[in-house]
Amino acid sequence: MSKSYLLRNDSITDRGMTKGTRTKGHIVDQALELASREGLNGITIGHLAEHVGMSKGGLFAHFRSKEDLQHQVLQVAIGRFRTAVVEPALAANPGMPRLRVLLDRWIGWDGDERLPGGCPFVGFAAELDDQPGSTRDVLAEAQARWMAFLARLAREAAKTGHLRPKTDPELFAFQLHGILLSYHQAYHLMRDPRAKARAQAALRSLVAANRPTRK
Amino acid sequence: MSKSYLLRNDSITDRGMTKGTRTKGHIVDQALELASREGLNGITIGHLAEHVGMSKGGLFAHFRSKEDLQHQVLQVAIGRFRTAVVEPALAANPGMPRLRVLLDRWIGWDGDERLPGGCPFVGFAAELDDQPGSTRDVLAEAQARWMAFLARLAREAAKTGHLRPKTDPELFAFQLHGILLSYHQAYHLMRDPRAKARAQAALRSLVAANRPTRK
Repeated sequence: MSKSYLLRNDSITDRGMTKGTRTKGHIVDQALELASREGLNGITIGHLAEHVGMSKGGLFAHFRSKEDLQHQVLQVAIGRFRTAVVEPALAANPGMPRLRVLLDRWIGWDGDERLPGGCPFVGFAAELDDQPGSTRDVLAEAQARWMAFLARLAREAAKTGHLRPKTDPELFAFQLHGILLSYHQAYHLMRDPRAKARAQAALRSLVAANRPTRK
Repeated sequence: MSKSYLLRNDSITDRGMTKGTRTKGHIVDQALELASREGLNGITIGHLAEHVGMSKGGLFAHFRSKEDLQHQVLQVAIGRFRTAVVEPALAANPGMPRLRVLLDRWIGWDGDERLPGGCPFVGFAAELDDQPGSTRDVLAEAQARWMAFLARLAREAAKTGHLRPKTDPELFAFQLHGILLSYHQAYHLMRDPRAKARAQAALRSLVAANRPTRK
């Protein structure tokens, strides 16, 4: 159930689009790049107009409100994340192979040059967690789906025998997400060249802690 | 060495202060509250003047620049963190007792009502990680001291026999910091009532994964 939601196609492709749709897609892409650095509240219509070289009026024709723009930016980020991280993980075998691909893809996503501020969801979470409103709700729902997806991966790994059957999938998801967040800070704030190796070692350690006992 | 740095007294006490120092202390406290919600870049002199009910000119008398104000806000946050988290942990016995106090105090700090946006360092890290400058440098140094402190706790726990001697202290610090970050997101963004129990279970699991083997 969380799968179909995560896989819902919200991204914008080039085929069969009108010029208006292409322009709008371009604006939202630029807005995401801006938001990755300056936060979702940093993308005011005025600031964005300057960034894409359009008039404010031209932008207003595409978005009903700042909130509407923020929602569309979030949807594009979710779509890209699905393509960059979720789909490649699903293409790998369940269990350890899928977990390893997930970690590698997340680390790659986080260094995407179109996202100069790193994973936008890390920034958005810190920015919006205390700001009630519909944008925060959309983000929290996306985050809940992500945590459910990680828990699913833990359940699969228990089924394939890579983790012990009694592994708590929600706790595993909490721990795995912690590895990603710690990596993000080590890489982006601390510029620690060992960040990736640490994240991989932390995943191995987490899996070892939940390894099935031999009979 | 990291200890003395972390324990350096940057906080403001009531004794022997002039009125000007008290006023300045009050302004910086208000600025930290504001920054906890809106980020360090959210505390413009104009915004802060409104928040504390002073004129912009009155504020300029206390701070040389926006950067100076940001540095002072960071120093106050570091001082408070030391009092709320580091000192109580150091008052507990090394090893597991100290690790448990650290986690509990971090969770309490993160819910401090004077910090409505949660742990300011989580927010500041996401905000500044891609913004070169002296404020980012101060934050990164504080974060490096924190990671060194966590690694020290791992070394102590290995000495007391709570962790195996071969435990990698830097990896343990990376993992423990990940637990705190995952907790922060579960509590603040997801409002998950199980966040604290999950963080405690994750610490137990991390310690168990590094438990000494019996001879």
